[in-house]
Amino acid sequence: MARHLYLCPLRWSDMDSLRHINNVQYVRYLEDARVDWLFNRGELERGEDEGFLVVRNEVNYRRQLHYRHAPLPVEVWVSRLGHASIEVSYELVDTDEDGARTVYADAKSVLATVDMTTGRPKRVSAEFRAFLEKFLDEPGDSDA
Amino acid sequence: MARHLYLCPLRWSDMDSLRHINNVQYVRYLEDARVDWLFNRGELERGEDEGFLVVRNEVNYRRQLHYRHAPLPVEVWVSRLGHASIEVSYELVDTDEDGARTVYADAKSVLATVDMTTGRPKRVSAEFRAFLEKFLDEPGDSDA
Amino acid sequence: MARHLYLCPLRWSDMDSLRHINNVQYVRYLEDARVDWLFNRGELERGEDEGFLVVRNEVNYRRQLHYRHAPLPVEVWVSRLGHASIEVSYELVDTDEDGARTVYADAKSVLATVDMTTGRPKRVSAEFRAFLEKFLDEPGDSDA
Amino acid sequence: MARHLYLCPLRWSDMDSLRHINNVQYVRYLEDARVDWLFNRGELERGEDEGFLVVRNEVNYRRQLHYRHAPLPVEVWVSRLGHASIEVSYELVDTDEDGARTVYADAKSVLATVDMTTGRPKRVSAEFRAFLEKFLDEPGDSDA
Repeated sequence: MARHLYLCPLRWSDMDSLRHINNVQYVRYLEDARVDWLFNRGELERGEDEGFLVVRNEVNYRRQLHYRHAPLPVEVWVSRLGHASIEVSYELVDTDEDGARTVYADAKSVLATVDMTTGRPKRVSAEFRAFLEKFLDEPGDSDA
Repeated sequence: MARHLYLCPLRWSDMDSLRHINNVQYVRYLEDARVDWLFNRGELERGEDEGFLVVRNEVNYRRQLHYRHAPLPVEVWVSRLGHASIEVSYELVDTDEDGARTVYADAKSVLATVDMTTGRPKRVSAEFRAFLEKFLDEPGDSDA
Repeated sequence: MARHLYLCPLRWSDMDSLRHINNVQYVRYLEDARVDWLFNRGELERGEDEGFLVVRNEVNYRRQLHYRHAPLPVEVWVSRLGHASIEVSYELVDTDEDGARTVYADAKSVLATVDMTTGRPKRVSAEFRAFLEKFLDEPGDSDA
Repeated sequence: MARHLYLCPLRWSDMDSLRHINNVQYVRYLEDARVDWLFNRGELERGEDEGFLVVRNEVNYRRQLHYRHAPLPVEVWVSRLGHASIEVSYELVDTDEDGARTVYADAKSVLATVDMTTGRPKRVSAEFRAFLEKFLDEPGDSDA
């Protein structure tokens, strides 16, 4: 299994009046991690009509996160691959030189694949499935 | 049990390029529903030092929501009341003249009560508990 | 001349880490004031193809604004009406019982009218011009 | 004169329902360009109490901008340096291999220097002035 790594740039305005990154902005980071993974990298040939709707989001906030110049690493992978839906998992995590990980949040999204021209559910295409399988967490994989 | 009703104003910019309300903005609506409930209404006397951190959010998106002039009703209640944490539940829902409900999303947040001056966990005060109990879903309550 | 009055709801997240309303959010309020004025009120019949592009924004910040439950009044009017462009002026202003005004910001936007199906410039239609003229500041009007 | 170059990452959500970058988000980019220039780069030693308030923003939108993976270059410089205020100018601009420039917007902000502990106006310190002078547009400079 591979995880896609997205280096998420923070914005100063992601802080709220408590002077930490606002909890809602973490959900924004998930969105940009998906866009980076599924749209920007160009590894994936998808039909024009293939799209997604987010049908569920869940986020566990582990540590407060403060604004910083350095981008925030977001790891993305597939934790369940269905016929017309995908569960995507994420960790927002710094890793130090010794490999020690500081997890700010873990999260999951369920995406339904839809035909963007009609808005109707659509099966995951064979090409897209092949792409997603590269990021699929094996059953028995540890705690991700 | 009472539910707090927050009439959430939408912004045109809450739409994304798919021309529906962006999934992240629903999480923003939860935040403003909490602020309306816990801060703006003035029914609640809280110590200056009592605050919250969001430790978990989950949202199930039931229907696409489109921009509209009319505010979006958000119902808020307490689904679990612990010693130093609260689970808040929400429904984003239109109700028609006959009482039929159209649920756009249901959601839950877990909040940890903290001392805002030190950032340390803090027990829910007696006054705050008394307030929250008015919104507490009884065990055995139906479909919340 | 009439001014359109938009009562702009604030969001808690409009505050930044300096604990006042962030300067960029004022520009967001201008957008929603325009939407309220030109789209939501239903007084205006416009062709489906009539739209706008913002070609200039300017904002003078007069006072710091803090988050509050009460909406912020935004006054909107037309300060120049051209063949294919409109200058819209705004004041973000509280008015007390005695009529004394506290101006948080004044602003102007220049909008170009465009054919939304082609993206090309388009003359202001006669119907739209008639609507806009009701909000046109007369030359010689005082300090607006 | 030098211009500071900030490579501004776009977010998918910066698009609005017209499927271009929303005009308000350009103003957000100006904010992050300033933060990058004045806070993140570490070239500048400033007292803890030195801060800014934005007292004016103006933006001229020259071309529509679409979401893209590549960051948007924002050039920043000082166009006027007063005793307690600074006018900052910006261009949002792509430059091709031949040096041809595509300007999406030009903008100016006026910043007032304030003592952050009291919120009162404050003169620009000698150290900060020395920093700003490196970015000061000379009278007679061409097209800035």
